[in-house]
Amino acid sequence: MEIKVMANILDKNDQVAKRINHQLNQQGIFTLNIMGSPGSGKTSLLEQTIGGLKGKYRMAVIEGDLFTAKDATRIQAQGVPTVQINTSGGCHLDAQMIERVLPTLPLADIDLLIIENVGNLVCPAEFALGEDCRATVYSITEGEDKPLKYPLMFKRSAVVLINKIDLLPYTPFNLIAAETDLAAINPNGQIYEISCRTNEGMESWLDWICGQVKTKKKRG
Amino acid sequence: MEIKVMANILDKNDQVAKRINHQLNQQGIFTLNIMGSPGSGKTSLLEQTIGGLKGKYRMAVIEGDLFTAKDATRIQAQGVPTVQINTSGGCHLDAQMIERVLPTLPLADIDLLIIENVGNLVCPAEFALGEDCRATVYSITEGEDKPLKYPLMFKRSAVVLINKIDLLPYTPFNLIAAETDLAAINPNGQIYEISCRTNEGMESWLDWICGQVKTKKKRG
Repeated sequence: MEIKVMANILDKNDQVAKRINHQLNQQGIFTLNIMGSPGSGKTSLLEQTIGGLKGKYRMAVIEGDLFTAKDATRIQAQGVPTVQINTSGGCHLDAQMIERVLPTLPLADIDLLIIENVGNLVCPAEFALGEDCRATVYSITEGEDKPLKYPLMFKRSAVVLINKIDLLPYTPFNLIAAETDLAAINPNGQIYEISCRTNEGMESWLDWICGQVKTKKKRG
Repeated sequence: MEIKVMANILDKNDQVAKRINHQLNQQGIFTLNIMGSPGSGKTSLLEQTIGGLKGKYRMAVIEGDLFTAKDATRIQAQGVPTVQINTSGGCHLDAQMIERVLPTLPLADIDLLIIENVGNLVCPAEFALGEDCRATVYSITEGEDKPLKYPLMFKRSAVVLINKIDLLPYTPFNLIAAETDLAAINPNGQIYEISCRTNEGMESWLDWICGQVKTKKKRG
């Protein structure tokens, strides 16, 4: 019974996600779903990304959180149209939530839509939101065993951003082990080592996004 | 429909949790449910806790993970009876899972049962497992905004362990802000600042557990 209900929920979610993806495709918008543990650095990555692409591309952001508008406030301060979804305790965003807020964003005037999911390394992996790609932010302070322990999210991500690399000298994190496991789980995934605090590695990540936005524009 | 199903699942969970709690109470076992984000340091805390209480109390551990037996292997190395529950992608432990594995543990010979939940700051908070108390491990590398963004888990925890305090000089974490928010959310909760790497603060935490185990034994 529980399993059937879950299957129905996922089916319905996927239908809505397909509709969203079709709409955003037609508008030539590249859409990214950013996931990761609480505190992995998703909002900091967003701040750096917006700062790095400002003037180059027109962006909008959907912020997912259980409660509070803390992250949306941080992003809005960057001068980018932002809408907050509060899940009221819910552990992930779903496609219906995205579809509901899309009309509040100036979609005709943007090139890049970034969705920041709820901080959770498990549940968001199951729910497509109509995105083109997923990126998982994975902080080295979480330990190198996470890819094998939480494989689904890493498997379904086009990019894994290994964040807080500036803390490497102060932690026992085994970078080689983590990257070996990531490559085994997701052989086609891109890996970038970054620090949102020192800006290390940010250029390669921004180049990757620019490549995606350009490809989408050519197709559109 | 979805809401009703969720209410049914929680009701059923709570019934089983009550049954487990009653059984463990009768056996004079103090039971702790340890929760927290992926990589917050739950397994390291367990290792330190077992090391610190060995010879004093008889312990057993239930390890919850989506996949792999990595954590159970680490705990078993400490010479403590350990059983692994793999949720196969499920985002939390529930009481039924606990009830199923209890007969595999030598309950007649233990004083302290520790359950390590799935790494997730959201879903495990909803599911009672028959425990006496909950402890949340909260790493400073997650940022000081987590108590307000994920209030349920912090609210329902008798203890919050602020972990990785050794990294304080290398991170922008605002300890006063975090502790102020924790006190507002959960005025009766204990807060310990610890580092599982340097052993800082571990004594106060072990004293707290010893107090709980003793009280339980007196009552039993």
